[in-house]
Amino acid sequence: MSFNTFGRLFRFTTWGESHGPALGAVVDGCPPGIPLAEADIQPWLDKRRPGTSRFTTQRREPDQVRILSGVFEGRTTGTPISLMIENVDQRSKDYSDVAKAYRPGHADYAYDAKYGFRDYRGGGRSSARETAARVAAGAVARAVIPRVRIRAWVEAIGGDAIDYAAFDDAQIDANPFFCPDAAAAQRWETIVDAARKAGSSVGAVVACEATGVPAGWGAPLYAKLDSELAAACMSINAVKGIEIGDGFAAAALTGEQNADPMRPGADGPHFLANHAGGIAGGIATGQPIRLRCAFKPTSSILTPVETIDRDGAAAEIATKGRHDPCVGIRGVPVVEAMVALVLADQALLHRGQCG
Amino acid sequence: MSFNTFGRLFRFTTWGESHGPALGAVVDGCPPGIPLAEADIQPWLDKRRPGTSRFTTQRREPDQVRILSGVFEGRTTGTPISLMIENVDQRSKDYSDVAKAYRPGHADYAYDAKYGFRDYRGGGRSSARETAARVAAGAVARAVIPRVRIRAWVEAIGGDAIDYAAFDDAQIDANPFFCPDAAAAQRWETIVDAARKAGSSVGAVVACEATGVPAGWGAPLYAKLDSELAAACMSINAVKGIEIGDGFAAAALTGEQNADPMRPGADGPHFLANHAGGIAGGIATGQPIRLRCAFKPTSSILTPVETIDRDGAAAEIATKGRHDPCVGIRGVPVVEAMVALVLADQALLHRGQCG
Amino acid sequence: MSFNTFGRLFRFTTWGESHGPALGAVVDGCPPGIPLAEADIQPWLDKRRPGTSRFTTQRREPDQVRILSGVFEGRTTGTPISLMIENVDQRSKDYSDVAKAYRPGHADYAYDAKYGFRDYRGGGRSSARETAARVAAGAVARAVIPRVRIRAWVEAIGGDAIDYAAFDDAQIDANPFFCPDAAAAQRWETIVDAARKAGSSVGAVVACEATGVPAGWGAPLYAKLDSELAAACMSINAVKGIEIGDGFAAAALTGEQNADPMRPGADGPHFLANHAGGIAGGIATGQPIRLRCAFKPTSSILTPVETIDRDGAAAEIATKGRHDPCVGIRGVPVVEAMVALVLADQALLHRGQCG
Amino acid sequence: MSFNTFGRLFRFTTWGESHGPALGAVVDGCPPGIPLAEADIQPWLDKRRPGTSRFTTQRREPDQVRILSGVFEGRTTGTPISLMIENVDQRSKDYSDVAKAYRPGHADYAYDAKYGFRDYRGGGRSSARETAARVAAGAVARAVIPRVRIRAWVEAIGGDAIDYAAFDDAQIDANPFFCPDAAAAQRWETIVDAARKAGSSVGAVVACEATGVPAGWGAPLYAKLDSELAAACMSINAVKGIEIGDGFAAAALTGEQNADPMRPGADGPHFLANHAGGIAGGIATGQPIRLRCAFKPTSSILTPVETIDRDGAAAEIATKGRHDPCVGIRGVPVVEAMVALVLADQALLHRGQCG
Repeated sequence: MSFNTFGRLFRFTTWGESHGPALGAVVDGCPPGIPLAEADIQPWLDKRRPGTSRFTTQRREPDQVRILSGVFEGRTTGTPISLMIENVDQRSKDYSDVAKAYRPGHADYAYDAKYGFRDYRGGGRSSARETAARVAAGAVARAVIPRVRIRAWVEAIGGDAIDYAAFDDAQIDANPFFCPDAAAAQRWETIVDAARKAGSSVGAVVACEATGVPAGWGAPLYAKLDSELAAACMSINAVKGIEIGDGFAAAALTGEQNADPMRPGADGPHFLANHAGGIAGGIATGQPIRLRCAFKPTSSILTPVETIDRDGAAAEIATKGRHDPCVGIRGVPVVEAMVALVLADQALLHRGQCG
Repeated sequence: MSFNTFGRLFRFTTWGESHGPALGAVVDGCPPGIPLAEADIQPWLDKRRPGTSRFTTQRREPDQVRILSGVFEGRTTGTPISLMIENVDQRSKDYSDVAKAYRPGHADYAYDAKYGFRDYRGGGRSSARETAARVAAGAVARAVIPRVRIRAWVEAIGGDAIDYAAFDDAQIDANPFFCPDAAAAQRWETIVDAARKAGSSVGAVVACEATGVPAGWGAPLYAKLDSELAAACMSINAVKGIEIGDGFAAAALTGEQNADPMRPGADGPHFLANHAGGIAGGIATGQPIRLRCAFKPTSSILTPVETIDRDGAAAEIATKGRHDPCVGIRGVPVVEAMVALVLADQALLHRGQCG
Repeated sequence: MSFNTFGRLFRFTTWGESHGPALGAVVDGCPPGIPLAEADIQPWLDKRRPGTSRFTTQRREPDQVRILSGVFEGRTTGTPISLMIENVDQRSKDYSDVAKAYRPGHADYAYDAKYGFRDYRGGGRSSARETAARVAAGAVARAVIPRVRIRAWVEAIGGDAIDYAAFDDAQIDANPFFCPDAAAAQRWETIVDAARKAGSSVGAVVACEATGVPAGWGAPLYAKLDSELAAACMSINAVKGIEIGDGFAAAALTGEQNADPMRPGADGPHFLANHAGGIAGGIATGQPIRLRCAFKPTSSILTPVETIDRDGAAAEIATKGRHDPCVGIRGVPVVEAMVALVLADQALLHRGQCG
Repeated sequence: MSFNTFGRLFRFTTWGESHGPALGAVVDGCPPGIPLAEADIQPWLDKRRPGTSRFTTQRREPDQVRILSGVFEGRTTGTPISLMIENVDQRSKDYSDVAKAYRPGHADYAYDAKYGFRDYRGGGRSSARETAARVAAGAVARAVIPRVRIRAWVEAIGGDAIDYAAFDDAQIDANPFFCPDAAAAQRWETIVDAARKAGSSVGAVVACEATGVPAGWGAPLYAKLDSELAAACMSINAVKGIEIGDGFAAAALTGEQNADPMRPGADGPHFLANHAGGIAGGIATGQPIRLRCAFKPTSSILTPVETIDRDGAAAEIATKGRHDPCVGIRGVPVVEAMVALVLADQALLHRGQCG
């Protein structure tokens, strides 16, 4: 509803800037009695943490989360859960370049157009550091729906895609790219290294699957599960495309090709295909929910780009500093978090309306 | 916020089923003093109206809109605008097939899983007839932002895409496909006719452009313009994918390729490219806003498909009745309406926060 | 959330003006499978209907409700329920007085200040006719929480209060004042008749009790049951005060006097008093919920009052036409409806968060 | 919208428990460019701070606020403003009494009924300490509407009311009761001292006036200014009644007595009375907005009261610890804050819809 709040019954509000003292999330509407400790949240933050390989930004942030409210004797109380992460590695560099001129592809110009000025240090509120707060909130969401398993991975980097025949779940956490295909991970080393060394960047596609979502979650019409997931993922920095199930590929199919026939199954229908990505009419069918997100390449590049300054005069800007050569990689835990947050909300909404 | 309401300040709520007596929309939060008459709304409904060519469903609905409130002496009063469209061509056919067995790809099974039962006549609430209410509401939204021009077209049908070199705006309303490329329109006749005659269906891609959106509309983070547009379009029946600007193509680019450099312009920056689709950091940059929606093929096909019935037993179903062989075509005015509704809302939100 | 929508999970949106063709409510978020027919709604509208005695306005409106959506085979489907009531007795009188000058106590001046102009016919949107839509929606809410009994009555008219020692539930529907004290009803005849004949009006206090509300409904902090009920009742035309439990009287008590001691009971605690009106910390305690609403006297009076016209010049205005000499009387079913709508919403919210 | 969030465009979300490490508010939707520093917020917190006289709780909390985000170079950026106040005087006392048995009048039983358990230390989330977060947020709201002056005072304590003929604005901050009548303040010393020494408590009435609110703020119907203010004030701990303008007194008047006649004025109408409390039809008329809140006596008293324990068995409880003998006194800055928060929100909403 509000600009920095997401969700309906299970909601979270994030705050904080890249170079402020801290950032955080307030999670509201959480059911009571759910076991929750900082140790349940930290592993997900660690997955997103910068500086863990040479393929991500070298900013060193421990991203240590603190629970400031809403948990008593190890369980959620049903009142707001305040989560805080302190910023410790805000490098006191010279921001005069960024303060004066607009970095193309970044939010600089748009923020100035909207607000009249902006916190230019590290991108301020528009920095992807905000996603740490989402990941922390997402960990709470996971605890609300423990039977749902949410798993994301990188499917392509710089146009080079994995081979799904070689998909190996165990690989995802075994390489610095969240890549389920060992051979692709190998190739991506070269691609991302090249981008990094050239001060350039590359885009990526992140795929996500949620299993264990019961048929019935979701809702027509403006809270369709597809719609909620699209809004959630499209709110992630650098995401410019989202597909549910076959997505754009479905637009090239016939009705026969796109059908997901059903047979009697042990526990509800047995589906013979999943073109719909587990959602029909906005409501979960019980099949795995599948989606893909397109991450554009990081806009921060060393190559000078034509731009204008705050006074409208011609300028050139090259973005120095510490950046992810492929922002999609660290997008994996963020996509997972957003999917968890949507599903926890839908779980409560469904229970509220339908018992 | 609610399941059948969309928007924050400029909001609309829709109601009605495919075979009920009527359907409608209540538009709330509209600024006062805006000239509005039924004649301002009807043309957009006429664009979406079924039965205008052999390429759409043959259901005959005049889709005549009535304004029941919120307008006085030809101008909006600032109070809710109730719009109603009567259903006149609900054919009294035998629905026993659909009542008993689930049509794959349709919302039938999911609705039953959620609600325990469903209005099966013509798809009930999940029918695309609901989009008439959106189009009516969208016409009000257009009146709120008269300087914004919103234009959608079909970009591909069944995998066959237009040639953007042959783009001709005048063509869009000159053929039954909202196709800006005359040659493609010719080819699509064959494609859609074939699908129609075979009782099959084909998917489509709809593109949309909004010009005249001032830099500054939109907002970080969970009301990003990308996110709002994605939610809006993904809520349309049959849409399974959405791209802003280059979308998935951007995921294959480098930072240099994806940059939208700026030069001093007469009125704000002059951008040398628009990979971002007119939105940076969730906020409009003043460039044209560009997006694409993937429509899956209509799930209603004559070929019998394996399915289960309400008792879980094996069944087969073929969807007789009147259907669009390519639901994406009539999606064009619906996408336009949803984009208008998002932008009118963002216009008010921006004015509210930033003056 | 929005200006013409009330509720969170169980929501309704109203539309319509006093002299438009119709008015209505769209009820969203209703649980599926609830038996509902027009005949379940009509009796509540009949209770509120004008023209049933000489103590209410003589406008003759049948207030016949139609269900346009959301009900199938006699049960709610979980999709929006559109309720419509046609206006039939809009008298084509001369409104030039009201169009030009502002009636003190009415919304005339404020609407013009806000919107720049207004639908002056019968008060337009600010007319108490809108409350018919609430009463219709309230009937749906009652069906959602069938075990809750909601009962309102008039407690005082023109400062003359009932004697609670003489409280007789059966009396409430036996006189034209919803008065539980037969002797008071007798006295009120004189009071209201006098006001009516003098072209004057009198204020009233309406009390309401809801029994059967389980302990646990409600929520801290900004959805406190007290807060929700206050917002709901204060949104009713002419209401200017609201008390929960002892209300203002509690402000004169000591902690000992105001305590509601508990003893072990058959089914939860047995309370020895109910100063809190059944709500502690914003959450229902299982005791009867009790509140009181102050209705100001109808602002429409025959005595000419000093005012200004649209151009700011001095004027005098006397409100001719058909009006309630005591608007609080017909407020009884409206208060009941608003309480029902709040409680149905809280029932779903509680189930959503706490199972 | 959500349980711990208040407001529509200008919103705040609070978090924190009485004995947790900290509490705070996230203010979202604030206009950009507004000068704001911790020093602008601290004075309001100091007004609410406990332990400043013997008439309030002796808990010693410095209530030092920190701004963690949303302000850059001394001005608001338009992004969320995170405000945090650390708890420093959580006395490590023995809570076994409160953990086991329910204090009548407190939220103890209701919380357990709702959530299954509760943070019993100092009342947890239901403690009035939460109002510190509101006061901090309210200070931001004041900065958004600098031309509006909001002033509250205590009007009555334990049934002993001030004499409005003796009203002296300068007195309000000159005594420990926020009492505008020096003689009443004198009497209240005796009343509150007696209650304090007896381990008892007394109720109070707080009045509030907002001047400088332009005609036009507010909105029909479910966002009526009366309704928003009622919801806001009724959400404050211990408030059980709210009146706008004459409130319940208006229910005893005739239409003539209750009219607020208008004459041409220098700047809009000159009103001859203000029975309506500055609001007509839910919209501000430009007159001072006037409301009154009833605070019940603090439920924490030394006299043992009959109750039940968590197992439903009979028990007795006396609330030791540090408590306000008259919680209404420190309610003064809280009422002011809530009124400021409502008005700032309405200011933005009005600008959003009406320009």
